[in-house]
Amino acid sequence: MALLLRAATWGLSPWRRYCSRGTQGAVSPDFVAALRAVVGPSHVSTAHAVREQHGKDESLHRCQPPDAVVWPQNVDQVSRLTALCYSHGVPIIPFGTGTGLEGGVCAVQGGVCINLTHMDQVLALNPEDFSVVVEPGVTRKALNTHLRDTGLWFPVDPGADASLCGMVATGASGTNAVRYGTMRENVLNLEVVLPSGQLLHTAGPGRHFRKSAAGYNLTGLFVGSEGTLGLITAATLRLHPAPEVTVAATCAFPSVQAAVDSTVQILQAAVPVARIEFLDDVTMDACNRHSKLSCMVAPTLFLEFHGSEQALAEQLQRAEEVTQHNGGSHFAWAKEAEERSRLWTARHNAWYAILALRPGSKGYATDVCVPISRLPEILVQTKEDLKTSGLTGAIAGHVGDGNFHCILLVDPEDPEELHRVEAFAQQLGRRALALQGTCTGEHGIGLGKRQLLQEEVGAVGVETMRQLKATLDPRGLMNPGKVL
Amino acid sequence: MALLLRAATWGLSPWRRYCSRGTQGAVSPDFVAALRAVVGPSHVSTAHAVREQHGKDESLHRCQPPDAVVWPQNVDQVSRLTALCYSHGVPIIPFGTGTGLEGGVCAVQGGVCINLTHMDQVLALNPEDFSVVVEPGVTRKALNTHLRDTGLWFPVDPGADASLCGMVATGASGTNAVRYGTMRENVLNLEVVLPSGQLLHTAGPGRHFRKSAAGYNLTGLFVGSEGTLGLITAATLRLHPAPEVTVAATCAFPSVQAAVDSTVQILQAAVPVARIEFLDDVTMDACNRHSKLSCMVAPTLFLEFHGSEQALAEQLQRAEEVTQHNGGSHFAWAKEAEERSRLWTARHNAWYAILALRPGSKGYATDVCVPISRLPEILVQTKEDLKTSGLTGAIAGHVGDGNFHCILLVDPEDPEELHRVEAFAQQLGRRALALQGTCTGEHGIGLGKRQLLQEEVGAVGVETMRQLKATLDPRGLMNPGKVL
Repeated sequence: MALLLRAATWGLSPWRRYCSRGTQGAVSPDFVAALRAVVGPSHVSTAHAVREQHGKDESLHRCQPPDAVVWPQNVDQVSRLTALCYSHGVPIIPFGTGTGLEGGVCAVQGGVCINLTHMDQVLALNPEDFSVVVEPGVTRKALNTHLRDTGLWFPVDPGADASLCGMVATGASGTNAVRYGTMRENVLNLEVVLPSGQLLHTAGPGRHFRKSAAGYNLTGLFVGSEGTLGLITAATLRLHPAPEVTVAATCAFPSVQAAVDSTVQILQAAVPVARIEFLDDVTMDACNRHSKLSCMVAPTLFLEFHGSEQALAEQLQRAEEVTQHNGGSHFAWAKEAEERSRLWTARHNAWYAILALRPGSKGYATDVCVPISRLPEILVQTKEDLKTSGLTGAIAGHVGDGNFHCILLVDPEDPEELHRVEAFAQQLGRRALALQGTCTGEHGIGLGKRQLLQEEVGAVGVETMRQLKATLDPRGLMNPGKVL
Repeated sequence: MALLLRAATWGLSPWRRYCSRGTQGAVSPDFVAALRAVVGPSHVSTAHAVREQHGKDESLHRCQPPDAVVWPQNVDQVSRLTALCYSHGVPIIPFGTGTGLEGGVCAVQGGVCINLTHMDQVLALNPEDFSVVVEPGVTRKALNTHLRDTGLWFPVDPGADASLCGMVATGASGTNAVRYGTMRENVLNLEVVLPSGQLLHTAGPGRHFRKSAAGYNLTGLFVGSEGTLGLITAATLRLHPAPEVTVAATCAFPSVQAAVDSTVQILQAAVPVARIEFLDDVTMDACNRHSKLSCMVAPTLFLEFHGSEQALAEQLQRAEEVTQHNGGSHFAWAKEAEERSRLWTARHNAWYAILALRPGSKGYATDVCVPISRLPEILVQTKEDLKTSGLTGAIAGHVGDGNFHCILLVDPEDPEELHRVEAFAQQLGRRALALQGTCTGEHGIGLGKRQLLQEEVGAVGVETMRQLKATLDPRGLMNPGKVL
């Protein structure tokens, strides 16, 4: 009862997996027939298992299945499906790889899930212009495989092999953002199906210039809109030269402060570090056990450098000087792929290593981001809060951006523990807000952070967002219940 | 008559300076008294000369003075002034340094010009977080002077010593954008007075994190909005480490194609060039005469490199190899400030050198931006169009971004020549659009490119922008007649 009351106050669905609406809802057989008429009978499903699959992502938000799932084969079909749903007042939920972490695909009001993964072509590659156009089913790994022989790559790496258009919708970033930017900085143009079914090209059809001052930045408005303003059916992305040489390094520190100070000083020295990741002692311990490493159990930085042989030698030297100056020890670096992989194994498998601390548990990752100077303070507070809450949690983060995740272990069948995780996440969000930070660096608002968003941007900010939403989606049918 | 007809068809004011509305318009003495009550009597003017000064920028758009000019001293006054104007249906035109190039400050419907230059404080500097908060009167040079001893700088450099908030409003960029990005990538938060007088903090009050996925990107919506959605009263900007060493270089090429090929290859080789500017033969000839240089009269690249001694040696070597491979000659480089200044004199004074080709003339700068691969094609076409039009024009551009300016000389008292300049600019805009480019890389839409904007983003794009404008400025009083 306490949990239910709490959830009601919070205005959110309690975090419970595997608890679905069960039966088909608001969508009539005639409407399903109309969907089939658009995409063909084999590309519509109302099967229980299929709907269940599409009602959840990788978060702890409980499964809320749509009434039907459709797989359009092209943008024209997306447009017709959207217009059909909109004219009938049926909610529309875009679906990519389902790798989101904030319940962005949960069909909180039922409706039609539009699974875009069948549209998976690289539509155009312009190597001289450092740009590529992808359909929504293309994942970041598939794109980088496609680019293999071009000398170019797409660096934004949120961990999961997410679809690139899903990454646009989320405003994703990840480990390379400190050098290459987030999705915000790497999208040149978007093709969007608006709720009416109309096709919008945010920078004009087919355009792929590097910069523009032509009117309002519609591209920027759709990056991070979490499917609430329209369906992204193609993205023109900015590519970067593939690194000539890559070197990885790790370094252990006597304190969180020393690790953060090193990060700031490396950035101030203009060392163009590609990745600079922080792992706390708990994470390092978990990684040692899971990946059979023998790293020091201490606050640790994992770094990666991209450049020429000569440039990297200098970057490494500067980075090592900075870390030594801050009491860092065990500065280890590696250039060969195998050796690099060994060093980065801990980071790459950190999620699983942490989950293995308590077999059978699920993980929930917080996602606050603060000004870098406030990181030591909030990390120390967070560790104290962990102790107080009695939860098991470990910290890893993109320290160069001030963004970190506290990965909390939870038994999804234990409502009391779920409640403590919720409370901890909210408290951490508020700590970040108090330090001029944001409640989400890269995972988005989704279902669980709507209250925090209000506290973050204030009444006028939220009202402005509401007005934008009402303008572009007057009936409130685009991925309803998310963000606002 | 032909000109008037043409201008009417085009829907734009003819380009004529020094032709003002003359007398005070829609603003009553009572309303002026109400303005004075907000800011104090000495901070309001309806004097003819003052209004004339505020009715034009550095473009050829004819002066259209506001009915009154006010100088608020703080954001509270801006808020009260805006609410006052809005409730009385009086247009509001924000004014910074007046260095715009597209008529953005022309008071096409009269109204009140809000001159923000008295608000000129650096409000907060966070060196560890690489961020700074500035009021709208702080110019980019003033900020960099302020930062002198911090090891940080703000790199966006549009040429003029513009106010930073004006640069936000324009979506400015300039010579350093190829490495450091445009204003779009360098604004972290904005304080905006909305038409109602309400205060919006686009990323939440006081926040200055490096990245976020929290709701719609309101910051991005206001960058480049040209004063049509609200008044920017403070900007939180991203700072960068000041370059340890700076090296400048120039290189002449046998053709435009060779210069552009070199640019693409330098970027593909991941040389982190800070500036890479193109000057055509006419510009080089003008510079030789004006700056007493003896450079080769040929398509030329001006480059600048930022980094450590060691890194720069390698960057220079790679760049020189690329240019030699493409037939470049006279690769000259310089490290000392004086020597660098000598090399860059030509680029910095190009505008004046070109104007000096015909004493007494005014200049108009086109501003198209295309995918880099299309640059040779459009540059060759542009040179042919210049010949056909009988106009004198020279080309300089930010070739690393695909953005270039054709600086056209015109006698502002000669309507026929003004008409030819207009026609040329429109034709060039359409050429860029046909090559997947934009009609404006960095100067904005202002008054003169509204038709081109429609062609660029299409009917749905313009309609979406109109909806956003109507949502945020329902009475259409924020800098009316611009952008849309």
